[in-house]
Amino acid sequence: MSAIKDSEAAPQCPRVAVTLGDPNGIGPEVVLKSLADARMRRLIDPVIIGSLHVIELYTDKLELEFPELIPVTEAMEPVPASALRVMNPSPGEKPRVAPGDVTGHAGDLAMKSVRLAVDLALDSAVDAIVTAPISKRAIALAGYEFPGHTEFLVHRTRAASHTMMMIAGALRVGLLTVHIPLAKVAKRVRKADIKRCLKSIARSLQADFGIVRPRIAVLGLNPHAGEEGVLGGEESAEIIPAIRESCKGGIMTFGPFPADGFFGSGTYRGYDAVLAMYHDQGLIPFKTLAFGRGVNFTAGLPIVRTSPDHGTAFDIAGKNRADEGSVRHAIYLAADIARQRSRPV
Amino acid sequence: MSAIKDSEAAPQCPRVAVTLGDPNGIGPEVVLKSLADARMRRLIDPVIIGSLHVIELYTDKLELEFPELIPVTEAMEPVPASALRVMNPSPGEKPRVAPGDVTGHAGDLAMKSVRLAVDLALDSAVDAIVTAPISKRAIALAGYEFPGHTEFLVHRTRAASHTMMMIAGALRVGLLTVHIPLAKVAKRVRKADIKRCLKSIARSLQADFGIVRPRIAVLGLNPHAGEEGVLGGEESAEIIPAIRESCKGGIMTFGPFPADGFFGSGTYRGYDAVLAMYHDQGLIPFKTLAFGRGVNFTAGLPIVRTSPDHGTAFDIAGKNRADEGSVRHAIYLAADIARQRSRPV
Repeated sequence: MSAIKDSEAAPQCPRVAVTLGDPNGIGPEVVLKSLADARMRRLIDPVIIGSLHVIELYTDKLELEFPELIPVTEAMEPVPASALRVMNPSPGEKPRVAPGDVTGHAGDLAMKSVRLAVDLALDSAVDAIVTAPISKRAIALAGYEFPGHTEFLVHRTRAASHTMMMIAGALRVGLLTVHIPLAKVAKRVRKADIKRCLKSIARSLQADFGIVRPRIAVLGLNPHAGEEGVLGGEESAEIIPAIRESCKGGIMTFGPFPADGFFGSGTYRGYDAVLAMYHDQGLIPFKTLAFGRGVNFTAGLPIVRTSPDHGTAFDIAGKNRADEGSVRHAIYLAADIARQRSRPV
Repeated sequence: MSAIKDSEAAPQCPRVAVTLGDPNGIGPEVVLKSLADARMRRLIDPVIIGSLHVIELYTDKLELEFPELIPVTEAMEPVPASALRVMNPSPGEKPRVAPGDVTGHAGDLAMKSVRLAVDLALDSAVDAIVTAPISKRAIALAGYEFPGHTEFLVHRTRAASHTMMMIAGALRVGLLTVHIPLAKVAKRVRKADIKRCLKSIARSLQADFGIVRPRIAVLGLNPHAGEEGVLGGEESAEIIPAIRESCKGGIMTFGPFPADGFFGSGTYRGYDAVLAMYHDQGLIPFKTLAFGRGVNFTAGLPIVRTSPDHGTAFDIAGKNRADEGSVRHAIYLAADIARQRSRPV
């Protein structure tokens, strides 16, 4: 792990940059709740990306016992083991915080944090990044054209191919299509894209999860996986050829499985990952099985990035009602993947 | 309950006709396993619809302890309490049984049983029917043009409107669209049809489940229920108006809810039924939560009809490997609904 090699005083654990997300959402609350736990700080070497002002506002509000915060300008700057590094992405600017409000100012702050975190990872100053939720509306108000984190990350890291995955223990669900209307899904089920997804998932299972010969299940698009063409033709025209060609290319791929019984019957347990054709097909069973401990992971990026499976939840922001479970799992997973990637092959 | 009124010797429990389904599938096995249990025969007054020859073949094969079987030509014919009535839908015909084979002969037998069961229910000779799985391919080979049970039932009972529902305890999921390709779903999400479905579900919750003021949740079609139009317009154009107008019409309807978190978060527990927009959206969470105890119920029919949530499973037919859990739950539910309908309003 490069960051550890570079820094004399670095502890033997991955250095993880954690952004606060939209300062008016639940991001700061769940990040701070996670990092307030001393055990978490023995597992990773954290760098909070955000403004000290925002942090102090929320630690007061939440009455959190928090270690000493040390503003740094370099992620590797040595600090006492009991202290926490904070890197401000927009020094000199005093952030205005109003929990629950959707503002361009907040969207801009959130995106500056993400950019700094990504750049630190690209420079190997940190081993992984965990991003707290941002608001699509807020970043649009700030003039950003990206619909969300993932698109920005793909752009900034120049990733050739990527797949959004949801992870909870051994349950790993990748999505062929994500944030598009259901009416447009069928046309996007194309052999070449399925093969690309399968390749990025297979590589990630090997490099990021240490699974030497991964087995991937593919779900059908239509009811009963098309029932031999009676209920839709995408299985025979696109999905089955993609599975066959991926198998020939050395990726152990199975399916297409009818999606409805695949999870309830426990069939999914026989595979290292599942490729779903669309958002709800993957996320309905994922959240039904793993609500509150799901982690969003972007497979195929040069950097390690995870995030919680929830949004800004403006309606409960600043009320000390948010559960930090998903962010905690996102940090665990980021640390695990960073460790796995640092292993000699 | 009319059947009980009509018959002197009838026990104080609903008379239920149970078809064997496709004789080459797992239908006969799961039906016979369910009815072999003496407790089941105290709960309902069963009439098996099928050939004695098929029954004996399977009871031998499965080494089931079975009560005396008495062929009857009238469903209400009195028999000793320890015996079981069998009504043959095609007397004089010797059925050829070959577990696992898909044949028009088997499809024809299966459909004749269904027709007889439906006619008995329409004549009030039985209080409910439970149908074991048939094969779409087998009934097509036999020359039937119906894709499945439900379409046949709707045709034969002349039901004006119906909704396929999956039931497991208090989890009740109705489907707006069922066996159509995913590419065709969005166009079928229409206000008038949603309202019709909501009405038939609401009526069924009252008449069949005894819920005086039912609350129904409606799922969105698109990811995040369309996210205010950004991810699809069907919510604002069709679903929300249908919910509003249904509410005005006196049906307590809520939503549209993003489908992915609705089940994992437990939100569904606050409602008496959920209306899903398409097959996998309803059946993925249903089977994930209730695999093996789900029951298919057709709301809106003049007769009471339930069936298990599985198919013919030709691959394990005749191997004594099928689980009768779902048929048992289908019988329980048929009996409960028949009792509920017989209560004075």
